[in-house]
Amino acid sequence: MAHKFINQIEPGETIDDIYIVRDPILRSTTRGDLYIAMFLSDRSGQLNGRMWQATETIYKALPKPGFIHIQGRSELYQNNLQIIINNISVVDASEVHIDDFLARTDKDTKQMFEEVKKIVSRIENPQLKTLVEEFLADRELMEKFCDVPGGMKLHHSYIGGLLEHTHNMLRVAVAILPLFPQVQTDLVLAGIFLHDIGKTEELSYDMAFSYTDSGQLIGHVVKSILMINQKVDTLRAKSTQIEETVMDALGHIILSHHGQYEFGSPKLPATAEAFMVYYIDDLDAKISQVTVAIENEQSDSNWTAWKSALQTRLYKKRIE
Amino acid sequence: MAHKFINQIEPGETIDDIYIVRDPILRSTTRGDLYIAMFLSDRSGQLNGRMWQATETIYKALPKPGFIHIQGRSELYQNNLQIIINNISVVDASEVHIDDFLARTDKDTKQMFEEVKKIVSRIENPQLKTLVEEFLADRELMEKFCDVPGGMKLHHSYIGGLLEHTHNMLRVAVAILPLFPQVQTDLVLAGIFLHDIGKTEELSYDMAFSYTDSGQLIGHVVKSILMINQKVDTLRAKSTQIEETVMDALGHIILSHHGQYEFGSPKLPATAEAFMVYYIDDLDAKISQVTVAIENEQSDSNWTAWKSALQTRLYKKRIE
Amino acid sequence: MAHKFINQIEPGETIDDIYIVRDPILRSTTRGDLYIAMFLSDRSGQLNGRMWQATETIYKALPKPGFIHIQGRSELYQNNLQIIINNISVVDASEVHIDDFLARTDKDTKQMFEEVKKIVSRIENPQLKTLVEEFLADRELMEKFCDVPGGMKLHHSYIGGLLEHTHNMLRVAVAILPLFPQVQTDLVLAGIFLHDIGKTEELSYDMAFSYTDSGQLIGHVVKSILMINQKVDTLRAKSTQIEETVMDALGHIILSHHGQYEFGSPKLPATAEAFMVYYIDDLDAKISQVTVAIENEQSDSNWTAWKSALQTRLYKKRIE
Amino acid sequence: MAHKFINQIEPGETIDDIYIVRDPILRSTTRGDLYIAMFLSDRSGQLNGRMWQATETIYKALPKPGFIHIQGRSELYQNNLQIIINNISVVDASEVHIDDFLARTDKDTKQMFEEVKKIVSRIENPQLKTLVEEFLADRELMEKFCDVPGGMKLHHSYIGGLLEHTHNMLRVAVAILPLFPQVQTDLVLAGIFLHDIGKTEELSYDMAFSYTDSGQLIGHVVKSILMINQKVDTLRAKSTQIEETVMDALGHIILSHHGQYEFGSPKLPATAEAFMVYYIDDLDAKISQVTVAIENEQSDSNWTAWKSALQTRLYKKRIE
Amino acid sequence: MAHKFINQIEPGETIDDIYIVRDPILRSTTRGDLYIAMFLSDRSGQLNGRMWQATETIYKALPKPGFIHIQGRSELYQNNLQIIINNISVVDASEVHIDDFLARTDKDTKQMFEEVKKIVSRIENPQLKTLVEEFLADRELMEKFCDVPGGMKLHHSYIGGLLEHTHNMLRVAVAILPLFPQVQTDLVLAGIFLHDIGKTEELSYDMAFSYTDSGQLIGHVVKSILMINQKVDTLRAKSTQIEETVMDALGHIILSHHGQYEFGSPKLPATAEAFMVYYIDDLDAKISQVTVAIENEQSDSNWTAWKSALQTRLYKKRIE
Amino acid sequence: MAHKFINQIEPGETIDDIYIVRDPILRSTTRGDLYIAMFLSDRSGQLNGRMWQATETIYKALPKPGFIHIQGRSELYQNNLQIIINNISVVDASEVHIDDFLARTDKDTKQMFEEVKKIVSRIENPQLKTLVEEFLADRELMEKFCDVPGGMKLHHSYIGGLLEHTHNMLRVAVAILPLFPQVQTDLVLAGIFLHDIGKTEELSYDMAFSYTDSGQLIGHVVKSILMINQKVDTLRAKSTQIEETVMDALGHIILSHHGQYEFGSPKLPATAEAFMVYYIDDLDAKISQVTVAIENEQSDSNWTAWKSALQTRLYKKRIE
Repeated sequence: MAHKFINQIEPGETIDDIYIVRDPILRSTTRGDLYIAMFLSDRSGQLNGRMWQATETIYKALPKPGFIHIQGRSELYQNNLQIIINNISVVDASEVHIDDFLARTDKDTKQMFEEVKKIVSRIENPQLKTLVEEFLADRELMEKFCDVPGGMKLHHSYIGGLLEHTHNMLRVAVAILPLFPQVQTDLVLAGIFLHDIGKTEELSYDMAFSYTDSGQLIGHVVKSILMINQKVDTLRAKSTQIEETVMDALGHIILSHHGQYEFGSPKLPATAEAFMVYYIDDLDAKISQVTVAIENEQSDSNWTAWKSALQTRLYKKRIE
Repeated sequence: MAHKFINQIEPGETIDDIYIVRDPILRSTTRGDLYIAMFLSDRSGQLNGRMWQATETIYKALPKPGFIHIQGRSELYQNNLQIIINNISVVDASEVHIDDFLARTDKDTKQMFEEVKKIVSRIENPQLKTLVEEFLADRELMEKFCDVPGGMKLHHSYIGGLLEHTHNMLRVAVAILPLFPQVQTDLVLAGIFLHDIGKTEELSYDMAFSYTDSGQLIGHVVKSILMINQKVDTLRAKSTQIEETVMDALGHIILSHHGQYEFGSPKLPATAEAFMVYYIDDLDAKISQVTVAIENEQSDSNWTAWKSALQTRLYKKRIE
Repeated sequence: MAHKFINQIEPGETIDDIYIVRDPILRSTTRGDLYIAMFLSDRSGQLNGRMWQATETIYKALPKPGFIHIQGRSELYQNNLQIIINNISVVDASEVHIDDFLARTDKDTKQMFEEVKKIVSRIENPQLKTLVEEFLADRELMEKFCDVPGGMKLHHSYIGGLLEHTHNMLRVAVAILPLFPQVQTDLVLAGIFLHDIGKTEELSYDMAFSYTDSGQLIGHVVKSILMINQKVDTLRAKSTQIEETVMDALGHIILSHHGQYEFGSPKLPATAEAFMVYYIDDLDAKISQVTVAIENEQSDSNWTAWKSALQTRLYKKRIE
Repeated sequence: MAHKFINQIEPGETIDDIYIVRDPILRSTTRGDLYIAMFLSDRSGQLNGRMWQATETIYKALPKPGFIHIQGRSELYQNNLQIIINNISVVDASEVHIDDFLARTDKDTKQMFEEVKKIVSRIENPQLKTLVEEFLADRELMEKFCDVPGGMKLHHSYIGGLLEHTHNMLRVAVAILPLFPQVQTDLVLAGIFLHDIGKTEELSYDMAFSYTDSGQLIGHVVKSILMINQKVDTLRAKSTQIEETVMDALGHIILSHHGQYEFGSPKLPATAEAFMVYYIDDLDAKISQVTVAIENEQSDSNWTAWKSALQTRLYKKRIE
Repeated sequence: MAHKFINQIEPGETIDDIYIVRDPILRSTTRGDLYIAMFLSDRSGQLNGRMWQATETIYKALPKPGFIHIQGRSELYQNNLQIIINNISVVDASEVHIDDFLARTDKDTKQMFEEVKKIVSRIENPQLKTLVEEFLADRELMEKFCDVPGGMKLHHSYIGGLLEHTHNMLRVAVAILPLFPQVQTDLVLAGIFLHDIGKTEELSYDMAFSYTDSGQLIGHVVKSILMINQKVDTLRAKSTQIEETVMDALGHIILSHHGQYEFGSPKLPATAEAFMVYYIDDLDAKISQVTVAIENEQSDSNWTAWKSALQTRLYKKRIE
Repeated sequence: MAHKFINQIEPGETIDDIYIVRDPILRSTTRGDLYIAMFLSDRSGQLNGRMWQATETIYKALPKPGFIHIQGRSELYQNNLQIIINNISVVDASEVHIDDFLARTDKDTKQMFEEVKKIVSRIENPQLKTLVEEFLADRELMEKFCDVPGGMKLHHSYIGGLLEHTHNMLRVAVAILPLFPQVQTDLVLAGIFLHDIGKTEELSYDMAFSYTDSGQLIGHVVKSILMINQKVDTLRAKSTQIEETVMDALGHIILSHHGQYEFGSPKLPATAEAFMVYYIDDLDAKISQVTVAIENEQSDSNWTAWKSALQTRLYKKRIE
């Protein structure tokens, strides 16, 4: 049976489906009865849930957060939809269809990854070629690379987001590199492919998106560098040397791709290749951010809400 | 007879040619004789000049700056080349081959302008199309547009620099717009074509590059807006209306294309099109700046001098 | 019948008057009955309104926002006054006395405008004189100039605010110009008169204060410049030339009057006149802002709430 | 005999007058002869001086810096005027006419001080009145107040500069206070009178302008506060109490009159009076700075050199 | 009878004790009955209180804020504990045991103060020694010094906090001064002892922590300087001179100990001693801040909430 | 024969010794003779050298820079000492006593390193202990660690500087850790020991101090992380696991020890240990910087020159 998505529930429906429960709280009514307030979510959104006549036993059994199967009905309360729950049972993660719960790129992941591979196969420098192939050959890592979101909030924050972002950046690079003949193609392509690879370790995304401890303490910029060095060590163990000058030029692109110290770049761009990766990254991120913001705010106004990361509201009206 | 370029003069040559004189100073030697120290330049560079046995009359007759015909010889003094002048005569600007004196793009101006016209002819929105055509029909302005430098110092600071910069930006836009289907092509193309049009009034470049008074007081960003409005008024006088929404969307791109308040943008980008023009502008400018800096510093070091505008030195070594 | 102002309603009164309704929401009580929660406002303030036994039809008919005639009574709920509504009917804007709804300067608009005219009539430079008179002769614009608020939030944010602000700035200028004999009086007076003229196009104020689309995309600083250029074009069509040096000096004052890039000035002040207009503007704005903040916070504390625009709380106690 | 001012010396004159010597250096010519290079200055400017056939004894006897009587002649060397010295004798400071050596306001100090006294006599609040009179009665301090420069470099950097600046600020305040009826006149007048009083201890100006050690370690802002508190203590010893609320309101004006933390204000303005003193101070300083810069740069250009404190060049041309 | 601390109350207990009442509000139930909502607090925390069947008379008699004796019972409401009050009587501050109400250092105040005295007794410079002893002899001030909190919010914000902070800073100084032999011990010790002494006048802490008016207008940095100068004046009256060089070196440490202009330092550190006091202050403050934040957030997460003063979340997990 | 140090040469001495030659320039005198101007240096300082009657052959043979043996004499020229060279021969680096040429800590390197080892031997956490021992066992690296300067310019910029800085930081940590019982000693000690270990790869110091290419592209912060990870990999190859939580906590200290983004920290401190290492690092650096600046400026003034890195001049006078 198809999952009933949160954003498709109408008032007065009977609900019998699996959702993620978050932040359940045991409360007592003014009359002294216990009830549980909670949030129910899937990838389409989130609603309030209420289970009246609850017990502390039920409350304690709830995962915080986790998957639960609920039976109940939807109703309108103070103009907001909520779900009144009659029965709750805990569900194991292995039993759910994860795509119902995590937002996911609407592009074809497989096809994007094929194109990524095809584009980086243009790399001619033998050392960068070897290094990139070593990454591509790491099947477990590449699976993560295709799954991990591009970020927590600002842009590409959905399953497959990093791939989509990297894929589009590579396509932009391929389109404009002929216009900048002095820029070293191989470095730009390898730099884009690996610029955020550390996000596979910075972010966790099993049920919801969050930072790993390691991700918060170290950050994806340095994680990316560490992962590249690990691959170089592996190659060295196989008697394939990557020269330090190649490593440094590539590493510099990664370390400077946020472009400014205040965005956590430990280095400022000092090569044409580093500038190019920085601008392509920022361009793709900002266009995505603007597009999503405009799509998500369906009000009558010509303007979105204030976007503090951009220090402006965004204009939604098109000229035609 | 071909002009002898400053950067091709060897020690011990006889010099009989036209150069720009700058900052001449009348000095007396320890023995009391008067001489004139000056700078001599053409588009290829600048040297010290010395005229011994000078008089106050000669000094007063010199343009400050201006063109002079000199006769003399080159010599090495303290490891630097200088020119010892025997005769000086003032030359009218009309008699000189201006290309010998102003740095000029090494690209084909005519061909670039043809491509610019071809690219903006893709604009389909009738109002933007009309507006752009009104600019293209302004022959005098288009001549300036093809001549004016892209800036005073940082990038494209040579005759034809604005055209070269605009041309490359348009090519980048054409290359990447298909990858961002939500971005309005017509606004981006018109925005790029006109983003720095005000530089035709901000900069003067008859003999040397400098700011006009008006350019310094008003700035090219606002000048560009004023010029667009002037064209709209002209069109209105011909009964062709450009709607305010089109004008505002285009004007916003111009006003926000420096991206940050501290770079003199009175508005921050609030549309996808404004972000795109901002990034393409900055990308093309920075790549050009890095390329020129690396080309111009022919030392053995792998690094250029410190670039305060970029807050870093630039790395010159390539990976192959 | 005189309008019953929001801030004069006492608990237990019968209400039968016109107010602006904003953000109405249809809700259901715990028993399932529908009611409408809304805000009711006029120029003196805002209250909560509740209409019990509402229907979706009534809700849908409500303007969002707009004028409504309500019948009901006031009551105290949780120490806050609210209005219980029995009947609602929509009212056309043409039927209301707009002064009841928009905050308005408590100064005499007509008299202030006469004084403004008198002060700018001191301008002796024939070109600036002509230009200013062209503005004064634009009756429709001058009406807007007398009506438009000085800003959205920080200072003079009421009908007639721009006039009051401009008027006071001119009076300050007249008072201090004799103390700065090197400063060009005509430029300062014309600069003040026109410094925010673009706000007539940036702000809308029919029922409530808001930014126009064009205002947000272009901003009042550049709008002011454009309006001045339009007038110059009109004069030119009448064969009256305004020289570029005059235009640039005046334009520079407008473009730099926010004083710092981060406040959206595309230029920094580069003349004594530009500095003077900048300081007079900021002085009048800040004194107004402090005065209003202190007047509006009638608590027992010697301090207002934190003012983030000023990065401090304000001290209310006077020394006597 | 009238002093021969540095900026009035022509080439070929016989010199027999007193100047300040600075930075004398003993050098040897290529032939091994010793000579002394030095700077000679008075309030009108500075020239190079050379004493050929010098000895180490003469060199050691020179004050560094100090007053010397020289005999010699002026000559042109490399287009610059210099003075060739034949005889040097050291002169005691008591023997010189100090006005020849320190730049001095061209306004009438006595008259300005009388006007300052007259303006502050308007103060009605008995405590502020008493406090201000206690300062006025401190004859030694008032003499310094009339002498001390307004600053080291940026504005009013000449003898009598602080008085001139304070005087003009008071006149501005008197002119505009009637336009801001909510602002407490007494606090503004007392605040302006005392806002930079600490400069009498921060700066030394016996022969040249410099910071005192104490001035650099503590700064004039805090020095001013300390001097006010000292006066309050003196008054208290005479059984005249100044209430803490008056002291705090006045002290706050002093401590916040630089307006921003980065200019060394330990507090941001939190009262209308503090804002007014801050703006009047900044307005008078900037207008003075612009005027002096324009007067001092007599080149043909319409623009001064770059002013890093203002982050712009200044425009010198007037509109007629 | 021992005070029943807020954080030790369990649901269902009978309450008969003194608490601080804050922000009481008179509300009416939907049925029209009046009740009073309020906050009840002591040093251990805060709870909601409700008095049903209240009257306006009772409400008006309540201190806002102040001490009240209540009788009632605790109950769980919506998972939060609240207190239902049956009787209220106002209590005079003199009758309460103040330690029950103000958070207080858990260190031994007396012992810390003894150690402070012992450490500063190491000062050998006779003038600093005399000055410090003059402070120690001011019994009333020393009592405040032992009581005042170290700040309002960020660190050591409890009774005795300034003493605890000063004490720990002195111990750090004693521990590290031998490692920096070039640093003048006496200045560092006196500087630390007095660096925040002005907080005794900046903060009030009778029942709750708040800024005094004077504290907000002048700030503790300048207050500290003023207090030191007062002591110097007192000593001078007793014929004991403190030289200006000593005063300036000490004053500079106080004025620069926030280290940066944007934190309200009117001077930047210019001596080794000033740098040392700045770093020891900041180190002790930040470690305390981190420790308290981690202790106070007992959630399961490895991370605290976002700390805007530190621009990060804090990591709670230890490595063992 | 002992080296004659640059700062010990008196005028009129015969010179016959090895120095570093830098920036030699071939110049011609006014009479047309060729001479070579150059700088001569050793660890104690630098002087001008002149070789008259030079030839282009001699000039071309000179290393730029490198070691040369010169014969000549010292003389005073324009109050500055210079060396007149009669003979020059190039010297191989292997023949020089390197200590004569590179500034070197005046502390005992061996003893400091022993103390470092002793202090880090306090680490009890078995994983950190193993990791630190792995570093200590890397003899080649430890030699570099004892040699590398602490930085290029600001502080500890001499051979052995990093060791001296690390050693003093460890001593500070040992002294103050008992005062902060909540801080994890092992992390702080290991963090300090390794915080700048990457400088061994960032800086080169064979004859002069400079950045390596890799150092400039990657930076010592990230280099340190990479070196730690390399050691962890080596340990893993020996079947010794370092857990990720330990690595992350240590890595975070390294990555955040510059304290602020603008100083190139890719992470802000988020643990008490990270704050402690940051403050101890900055304290030791600043005290060293101030001390060196004051020692190096032996002028009569009480103040050093302006220090742009500290945004102040430094006060040199002591209170005794």
